Amino acid sequence: MIGRLLGICALSLCASAAFAQPTLGVRNAVGEGATDAPAAEVLTGAQKRKADEIINAALSSELAYELLESLTTEIGPRLAGSEAEARARQWGVERLKALGFKNVRIETFELPYWQRVRESAAIVSPYPQQLAVTALGNSVATPKGGLQAEVVRFASLDELRQAPAERVKGKIVFVDEKMTRMMDGGGYGPAVAKRSGAANAAGRLGAAAAIIRSVGTDSHRMPHTGGMRYEDGVPQIPTAALSNPDADQLARALSYAEGPVMLNLELSVETRPAATSGNVIGEIPGRSDEIVVVGGHLDSWDLGTGAVDDGAGVAITTAAAKLVAVHGGKPLRTIRVVMWGSEEVGLHGARAYAKAHAGELERHAIASESDFGAGSIYALESRVGQDATGAIDEMQRQIARLGIIRGGNEASGGPDVSPLRAAGVPVFGLAQNGLDYFDLHHTPDDTLDKVDPADLKQNVAAWAAMIYLSANVPVDFRP
Amino acid sequence: MIGRLLGICALSLCASAAFAQPTLGVRNAVGEGATDAPAAEVLTGAQKRKADEIINAALSSELAYELLESLTTEIGPRLAGSEAEARARQWGVERLKALGFKNVRIETFELPYWQRVRESAAIVSPYPQQLAVTALGNSVATPKGGLQAEVVRFASLDELRQAPAERVKGKIVFVDEKMTRMMDGGGYGPAVAKRSGAANAAGRLGAAAAIIRSVGTDSHRMPHTGGMRYEDGVPQIPTAALSNPDADQLARALSYAEGPVMLNLELSVETRPAATSGNVIGEIPGRSDEIVVVGGHLDSWDLGTGAVDDGAGVAITTAAAKLVAVHGGKPLRTIRVVMWGSEEVGLHGARAYAKAHAGELERHAIASESDFGAGSIYALESRVGQDATGAIDEMQRQIARLGIIRGGNEASGGPDVSPLRAAGVPVFGLAQNGLDYFDLHHTPDDTLDKVDPADLKQNVAAWAAMIYLSANVPVDFRP
Repeated sequence: MIGRLLGICALSLCASAAFAQPTLGVRNAVGEGATDAPAAEVLTGAQKRKADEIINAALSSELAYELLESLTTEIGPRLAGSEAEARARQWGVERLKALGFKNVRIETFELPYWQRVRESAAIVSPYPQQLAVTALGNSVATPKGGLQAEVVRFASLDELRQAPAERVKGKIVFVDEKMTRMMDGGGYGPAVAKRSGAANAAGRLGAAAAIIRSVGTDSHRMPHTGGMRYEDGVPQIPTAALSNPDADQLARALSYAEGPVMLNLELSVETRPAATSGNVIGEIPGRSDEIVVVGGHLDSWDLGTGAVDDGAGVAITTAAAKLVAVHGGKPLRTIRVVMWGSEEVGLHGARAYAKAHAGELERHAIASESDFGAGSIYALESRVGQDATGAIDEMQRQIARLGIIRGGNEASGGPDVSPLRAAGVPVFGLAQNGLDYFDLHHTPDDTLDKVDPADLKQNVAAWAAMIYLSANVPVDFRP
Repeated sequence: MIGRLLGICALSLCASAAFAQPTLGVRNAVGEGATDAPAAEVLTGAQKRKADEIINAALSSELAYELLESLTTEIGPRLAGSEAEARARQWGVERLKALGFKNVRIETFELPYWQRVRESAAIVSPYPQQLAVTALGNSVATPKGGLQAEVVRFASLDELRQAPAERVKGKIVFVDEKMTRMMDGGGYGPAVAKRSGAANAAGRLGAAAAIIRSVGTDSHRMPHTGGMRYEDGVPQIPTAALSNPDADQLARALSYAEGPVMLNLELSVETRPAATSGNVIGEIPGRSDEIVVVGGHLDSWDLGTGAVDDGAGVAITTAAAKLVAVHGGKPLRTIRVVMWGSEEVGLHGARAYAKAHAGELERHAIASESDFGAGSIYALESRVGQDATGAIDEMQRQIARLGIIRGGNEASGGPDVSPLRAAGVPVFGLAQNGLDYFDLHHTPDDTLDKVDPADLKQNVAAWAAMIYLSANVPVDFRP
């Protein structure tokens, strides 16, 4: 998952996009089912029984785990634009075809390429020792051999922003702001602001480099990477994250030392103006021309094998759609599974899709992405027209036995559907227990062993039921 | 803590050392206290009250945490024989003097030096990706650029030992044996056999290199280092440990691949025939010429800051002895705190001490080392003469309110006192909850944040009471 801030940014970029066409009502397009049911009930008895059957099948299916194990083992890390991401796309095409999906294809696009080559940090004096550090995505390099300067610590990004330039000039700025652990990941938004903000604020004040306490909730010596962007017109300075224990250590060193604490930071990176990425797409064709879009993103950060971010989302939604294909009959709407490319470095796949499919966005009935690991789902959220909230309420009752309550009607739907949402496409979201998600997020520790197979099955069951119902209930989800 | 096997090895090396002198009975040497008490009670009422007072003081003392924080921050990692270990000795001398210990000194010795320079491992084909690896202490280097060969996996060291040479020759042997999590760390002995055993068995069979699943119980991408020794006459091949998730990954890659899995392993190391190390010693002089030895080891592996292994032991025993000095009056026996040097790479400090102090070992009344982190203590063990077990029983009753039961009379006393134990010195041991010790042991994650301050206080309280009682109860602990 990319920063929520970047998601919001993507949304604001797209918010003014012209999209004022009248939405197609499914009732008109298909004209069956809804009118026979009592006003308060949209789901038919047959649909409820079918959703139940699909949930049961999902709870005993190993498919999602098999897909996740295969992706994380046979491909491993798959940085946006890399050769490994290209192998992941090939993996996606082969798996979707083998599972019987139709119209399987790669929709390619280009993006600027960045990768880390080497990174190290050390306290030089007065307490010489190595620190665990990782470059933030898009950071410029330091000079070869590193950049040595005094460290100046700020307890928060706000404190840095208000600092006088003379306190910062020529120094290595250290933004030591912590992240709060929260069920819904709500601590991430405030904490991630420093990922771009530290380098931008420090660069503006003339600093030599900016390091941050990792945006993460664990206490292991694994720094969290993640994308950052330089603001226009601000000097671009190298920027990196310390693990939480190393941030503790540097803060202690600063409090112990009577004189300056000198740090050496070395970052070596490789960049190219353009690399190829792509979205991998497979479909279960429906009986109408409407489309339900689900998926996860195929790229991952380079440090781990992208099991929770976002191999899980790819595996959950692919397995869920396959279960619907097996048990659900030919759906009313086409179910389109998208394995999004290059999400982590700026939602490139999401934007490319919205552009390539601009002409059919009005036929996108509803969309959702799974991009928060494999923690168990506790709520069904939506962002649909007021008239459709009752149908979502009914869907929630179908998945309530999985422990899922009804959430609000202000769902984000996931980062890769944010351009669709901005263009008026309704979304739903299956909110997950994220208490440990930011222990792993963007670290080397994002590996298969962190996924609980039982939680993964609960996810697949909820997604399968939601895909089946979204694709078959003849309700217009738009306002 | 070094491998128990190495401890046993050290013991066996020393078991034949001549030490047949009659032990000095404290009753004869001092002649007060014991004969006045009833046969079943060695501790006087005043001693019990004093022990209680010391326990209470320890439970509200921050000294151990302050020492541990200072050592891990101001020195950090302190590899045996390194310049950092020399700084740690200076730190020890300054702290012991500042705390009022007497006869503060460094007793130096030499040892062969080894340090890692660079290490990496990658699956080359068919699933190219980096693996998290660390060289085992004393490993030879690979050729520059690495050593590339097919991987052959063995589920256990025993399986490797029984393998035919043609299965192994020219390959990278992978010993994938797991470790069992146990309260008393009892899973370590069986698991650590492969740390030397893999390279020795594989080298004997003509392998190119040997890698092992880390000797550890966690599932983080932090490989566990640790010392290994080449057997005489066996070809010396490079040897390293994968983190547990990486061992899982390599095992999966082998099960997925239809052909060979090719690995590249690069280890670069630096060695010198001799480096200086030393034991740091401080004393609370007693009224007799007998000595009670307590301490922890000052060196640590290079990857972490040695908070649990063994900064905790140094801090606990130093703080406990200081509390005894403040509250206990002048002790009957001299309390000697030893911050042992170069434990991790082969008990060099322990051997040097036993040699340097051979002439006074008969005056060592009892000895013990704290070297199992800061997990809470649950049992008092001993290895004393049968006549002295009653006194140890009484001591246990004094610390029972800390949750400490009586353990057996076969204590090891800790790795650095094993040469003393082999020479006939009685020992006691305070058994700790080690359920998470081997999550951290010898990894980058061995840092201050892993120490629970409340558990640390419980340790100090138990050690302070035991030091006070051992140094003052006029019992001969020898058989």
